Amino acid sequence: MRTTSFGVIRIATKGPGDVSGLMSVIDSGAIDPASILAILGKTEGNGGVNDFTREYAVAALCTALAPHLGLTPHEVEQRIAFVMSGGTEGVLSPHITVFTRREVGEQPAGISGKRLSIGMAHTRDFLPEELGRSAQIAETAKAVKTAMEDAGIADPADVHFVQIKCPLLTSDRVEAASARGNKTATTSAYGSMAYSRGASALGVAVALGEIASDIGDEDVLRRYDLFSKVASTSAGIELMHNVVIVLGNSASSVSEFEIGHAVMSDAIDSAAVIAALNSVGLGIAPQATAGRKFVNIFAKAEASPNGSVRGLRHTMLEDTDISSTRHARAAVGGLIAGLAGTSAVYVSGGAEHQGPAGGGPVAVIAKLSN
Amino acid sequence: MRTTSFGVIRIATKGPGDVSGLMSVIDSGAIDPASILAILGKTEGNGGVNDFTREYAVAALCTALAPHLGLTPHEVEQRIAFVMSGGTEGVLSPHITVFTRREVGEQPAGISGKRLSIGMAHTRDFLPEELGRSAQIAETAKAVKTAMEDAGIADPADVHFVQIKCPLLTSDRVEAASARGNKTATTSAYGSMAYSRGASALGVAVALGEIASDIGDEDVLRRYDLFSKVASTSAGIELMHNVVIVLGNSASSVSEFEIGHAVMSDAIDSAAVIAALNSVGLGIAPQATAGRKFVNIFAKAEASPNGSVRGLRHTMLEDTDISSTRHARAAVGGLIAGLAGTSAVYVSGGAEHQGPAGGGPVAVIAKLSN
Amino acid sequence: MRTTSFGVIRIATKGPGDVSGLMSVIDSGAIDPASILAILGKTEGNGGVNDFTREYAVAALCTALAPHLGLTPHEVEQRIAFVMSGGTEGVLSPHITVFTRREVGEQPAGISGKRLSIGMAHTRDFLPEELGRSAQIAETAKAVKTAMEDAGIADPADVHFVQIKCPLLTSDRVEAASARGNKTATTSAYGSMAYSRGASALGVAVALGEIASDIGDEDVLRRYDLFSKVASTSAGIELMHNVVIVLGNSASSVSEFEIGHAVMSDAIDSAAVIAALNSVGLGIAPQATAGRKFVNIFAKAEASPNGSVRGLRHTMLEDTDISSTRHARAAVGGLIAGLAGTSAVYVSGGAEHQGPAGGGPVAVIAKLSN
Amino acid sequence: MRTTSFGVIRIATKGPGDVSGLMSVIDSGAIDPASILAILGKTEGNGGVNDFTREYAVAALCTALAPHLGLTPHEVEQRIAFVMSGGTEGVLSPHITVFTRREVGEQPAGISGKRLSIGMAHTRDFLPEELGRSAQIAETAKAVKTAMEDAGIADPADVHFVQIKCPLLTSDRVEAASARGNKTATTSAYGSMAYSRGASALGVAVALGEIASDIGDEDVLRRYDLFSKVASTSAGIELMHNVVIVLGNSASSVSEFEIGHAVMSDAIDSAAVIAALNSVGLGIAPQATAGRKFVNIFAKAEASPNGSVRGLRHTMLEDTDISSTRHARAAVGGLIAGLAGTSAVYVSGGAEHQGPAGGGPVAVIAKLSN
Repeated sequence: MRTTSFGVIRIATKGPGDVSGLMSVIDSGAIDPASILAILGKTEGNGGVNDFTREYAVAALCTALAPHLGLTPHEVEQRIAFVMSGGTEGVLSPHITVFTRREVGEQPAGISGKRLSIGMAHTRDFLPEELGRSAQIAETAKAVKTAMEDAGIADPADVHFVQIKCPLLTSDRVEAASARGNKTATTSAYGSMAYSRGASALGVAVALGEIASDIGDEDVLRRYDLFSKVASTSAGIELMHNVVIVLGNSASSVSEFEIGHAVMSDAIDSAAVIAALNSVGLGIAPQATAGRKFVNIFAKAEASPNGSVRGLRHTMLEDTDISSTRHARAAVGGLIAGLAGTSAVYVSGGAEHQGPAGGGPVAVIAKLSN
Repeated sequence: MRTTSFGVIRIATKGPGDVSGLMSVIDSGAIDPASILAILGKTEGNGGVNDFTREYAVAALCTALAPHLGLTPHEVEQRIAFVMSGGTEGVLSPHITVFTRREVGEQPAGISGKRLSIGMAHTRDFLPEELGRSAQIAETAKAVKTAMEDAGIADPADVHFVQIKCPLLTSDRVEAASARGNKTATTSAYGSMAYSRGASALGVAVALGEIASDIGDEDVLRRYDLFSKVASTSAGIELMHNVVIVLGNSASSVSEFEIGHAVMSDAIDSAAVIAALNSVGLGIAPQATAGRKFVNIFAKAEASPNGSVRGLRHTMLEDTDISSTRHARAAVGGLIAGLAGTSAVYVSGGAEHQGPAGGGPVAVIAKLSN
Repeated sequence: MRTTSFGVIRIATKGPGDVSGLMSVIDSGAIDPASILAILGKTEGNGGVNDFTREYAVAALCTALAPHLGLTPHEVEQRIAFVMSGGTEGVLSPHITVFTRREVGEQPAGISGKRLSIGMAHTRDFLPEELGRSAQIAETAKAVKTAMEDAGIADPADVHFVQIKCPLLTSDRVEAASARGNKTATTSAYGSMAYSRGASALGVAVALGEIASDIGDEDVLRRYDLFSKVASTSAGIELMHNVVIVLGNSASSVSEFEIGHAVMSDAIDSAAVIAALNSVGLGIAPQATAGRKFVNIFAKAEASPNGSVRGLRHTMLEDTDISSTRHARAAVGGLIAGLAGTSAVYVSGGAEHQGPAGGGPVAVIAKLSN
Repeated sequence: MRTTSFGVIRIATKGPGDVSGLMSVIDSGAIDPASILAILGKTEGNGGVNDFTREYAVAALCTALAPHLGLTPHEVEQRIAFVMSGGTEGVLSPHITVFTRREVGEQPAGISGKRLSIGMAHTRDFLPEELGRSAQIAETAKAVKTAMEDAGIADPADVHFVQIKCPLLTSDRVEAASARGNKTATTSAYGSMAYSRGASALGVAVALGEIASDIGDEDVLRRYDLFSKVASTSAGIELMHNVVIVLGNSASSVSEFEIGHAVMSDAIDSAAVIAALNSVGLGIAPQATAGRKFVNIFAKAEASPNGSVRGLRHTMLEDTDISSTRHARAAVGGLIAGLAGTSAVYVSGGAEHQGPAGGGPVAVIAKLSN
């Protein structure tokens, strides 16, 4: 029986501290603040260690939502999963996507097929020395399964996007491990983001049976043939555990939305983006599809580690002026925006073990008219 | 009667000083160095005032070609039109495209339709105070017509890409004007590049009848509704006149190549890129077209001056870390590479009066099998 | 009679959102939050239009101070003058300097000489078309005089640093002027910051008699021989009027602090920095001075507009990768930090009419032991 | 007996390809091109992997010098030691310093004390797997001793600056090692520059007795307490061996120049810069010293690896927009230019094992009037 409804709303922002769009939607009654599960955003920083637009955006949203939820800002941050991806290079337009869940008393008529469903789960806190290693992989895999249950999804084929927030190392955390006589996977804060993202993505792949479960510490950031086709992971300083958000389609959902995905095999894989659009009944913009509306696309991008795209050299990895993650978001963002027909799309950098090397997952959410 | 053959060859480079690819092609006999008309390249600098990869690439090419042509490097630079566009952001891959022309004694059988033809012309030297103003517009228009004749093209509809090299202002040049009691359009070297590119593009538009000829100084960089759909202009410090290269199709050509174009109305106009591909019998990559092969695509990109793309804010113009031209090339380069199926495409920044504001021309060259 | 005491405390920050240092000082009783007049900070953004660390820092400070003052965060922002200068390039270390004022009942014995005194004043709101023009100059000059009175300073020679917050133009503001049939000084947001800073600095120069008062619109950003030796101005989007903070020495103050200044004639003027240190009894680090302690130094830096320093070319103005303001802060920050012996110094960019072209004012605050 | 004369001339450049200054000096007879030993330059690139201004400058100089020496450009590159340091951040002004040597027939009268002397030596070619390891350290140490003999310097205390050019790893070189079953110190091109610089500097320290000779692979880039006070090392792609240039004072020299040095303990160590100036009889600019003229200063700069300077946080290592080497050169360049009174100084980045962590060597050359 269908019991739950999930909503998705994309809201443009005028700056990292701008909450006016969300407040308008709440004031209008279109969103019940208590129903907000997660907010994924693109903010206009550089996406690197010194990108403060992410924490500023979260702080602004928590402060604004607090009175609506009768909570302190800090409690809001615990309740709602905030995933801010820094970097709106090229045409990418700053925005947030708000995901909501509410229980429905009566089952609406005329709904057929599986519909968008969202489940969440948390791992336990990790020790710094566990980040980027098999412990993080295994715990993440467990949490993905829990989140699938939460979403009412049994078949891994119904999972189309798994967004994960994961921790990173700081010098304090490295020292804490060291004081215990343990070495961390790396001592660099920046480097640890890649390790944590990579291990988390491998956890998704294990949970969904995309790869075998016997992967070890030494595979992380090395065996790039091991990857998930639906994982999207972001590292943040504010937590020590993984937050797992599973997005898929479920027969238990009465949502007006549907999600699908494909995998870009490299950064110029237009066929994959088109396939992802097609998977939810959409095509290349401008849309001529009746009864279906594009909502948003979620993708990961990276500079291919071997320095080339289809045999031709790229210069992203050797540019001292612009980080490769910024280059990759700009390029893949340009392609996806062109095919989707809108620049407010979610393209995030750092795609270790998320899709093949140089490629990445691409998921699309469409709204159905019925 | 068809009397001239034009060749186009795209060669990857390993760095701005790398001439090995061109030397191999010459050594193999595939290109007669004496037939080289023009070389358009993408080099891996930042595309700004302090991008030295352009002059380095030209210096390396001139030095390498000099013994083959029995000329000094400086004479080579006078003979061949070198247009280096700095900036291979995102997936863009450094490369050069070499254009050749040779007279054919006998007319090959079985050639039908118009084929690629290239014509060149030079304006007189400009005074610094003429740059970015009506004198540059009018002289450029004249030179475009001369170049069309040189190419054997009578109908403006057969012109698909007009590449122009134009001068910029330096502090010395501004002072020289000032000493004559005249003011230049701007005193900024960087700013003058936009003025010179803009006036040159308007000259193309006048020549091709795209706009009326009564445009004045005050329209440059202001009346963005006035533009050419085929102009691509680049400012360089090394000259004081405009070099005009007209690329089109002509019944006088026996070339194996054909050129077509479309106009991107904004930076995410995938439909225009697809139309340009279609115009020479190609489609979205991977190509399934028999008898036709993609050679290269030539496009101009810019951040839309009004700060948004289809109503959604972009952040390119307000980014102090990355110049908007780099953002725009990365994004448009990503889209075009995705649709063309290759990252060695020519996407150049600074599209003032070249296509509508925020958009730009996009031309495609295909090779025919017969 | 000496009636007022002024305090200065410099607090390191761990990030733009970090208020823990100030909260500790308040909790310890060392600062009464009600006594806070102004907070000048260096935050770790790029200092450009898209530097959100400044507004984030102000938001965090207002939120943290609000309960201590019984005000809303918005009211705190109205009450205390926050001036955040973005950009901690090179060795510059993020920090805030908190200025306090309190009335003293009884006059302490043994105080001689003039001591640090701070006065504040506000201009009326400006129309967008007044920014960067004579109206802003004249109103600022009036406010400087009011602030001097507030500080108990009669002699302009006792004024050593005038910090001003001034407005900038946005596209909305430009349009509002346009709707009234008026043109603004520029239509560029970035460009308007320079105009507003420049006119504000000229206002200081007029008030202090450093230049004649008959300067017009056309002198702003052109007549660089007109400047103030003590003005430091910052443009911000959050206000439409100028906030003026005068720092000088007054016989009415019982402060433990003293302020002095000098003017750097160019970006490598070590003699001026040493003179500024000497002016408050200090020397080059390491300090050997008994009875006096270095507190902070406040300076403005810019790339010399003529492209050279003492006849040798600099490359700051032509660098497309790093803005000239970042270059200038890094270089001048390195010199000042080296001479002061600490990297938590306030070096701010954009020195139009603040000191001679390419140079800038440099003020030092020392703490006296008695 | 004094038999050799060494010259030093500093020449400003207008761009990386500008050789006009050197050509003028040669044309004027002030420099005999055959006497040129080495050219150290500051070029205006980013100093990173994709800084092509260095190779462009070397190519331009070799092409220009070739006819003067009766050699091919390639032979010029083999004969003269070119060390181009990319990055003229902040006030740093692009220039080259040309070092010459010629034998003198008769000993001039009135020369006393030791004078500038320069010696050179080359190591054997390294295998990629030897870079950044003890083999590179030991071979460099041997070459330093050979170069000291060449310079007529017996006492390590007379060595004031040892400039080394050393190789870096490329993916080809890493693969070659891998094919032999060997692992390189790192697989990153960028990372290998630090390893090679670090091992080379340790080689200098061993040769001069600054540290014991029993250092191993694991000490490189880890034991930052091991360092040389006079080493300055630069990695370049164009060679597989180390070129060692020893600069010191010798009784066998009739040079008009003298060299001295000090060690900056951190990036704001003005006392060390002043000590270095004092060591050759100079003071803080403006110079009041009779009989001595400042020629140039040679220093290495880096962001302190522990993230702070004298206990205060710096933000150089976490900035995704500007590399830490650019930050460090700008800041240290600002300090040194301020104290030297000129911005055409040689401040180079990447100071691993060259001075203490966060600091670096600083050498000064003065010209004596007699």
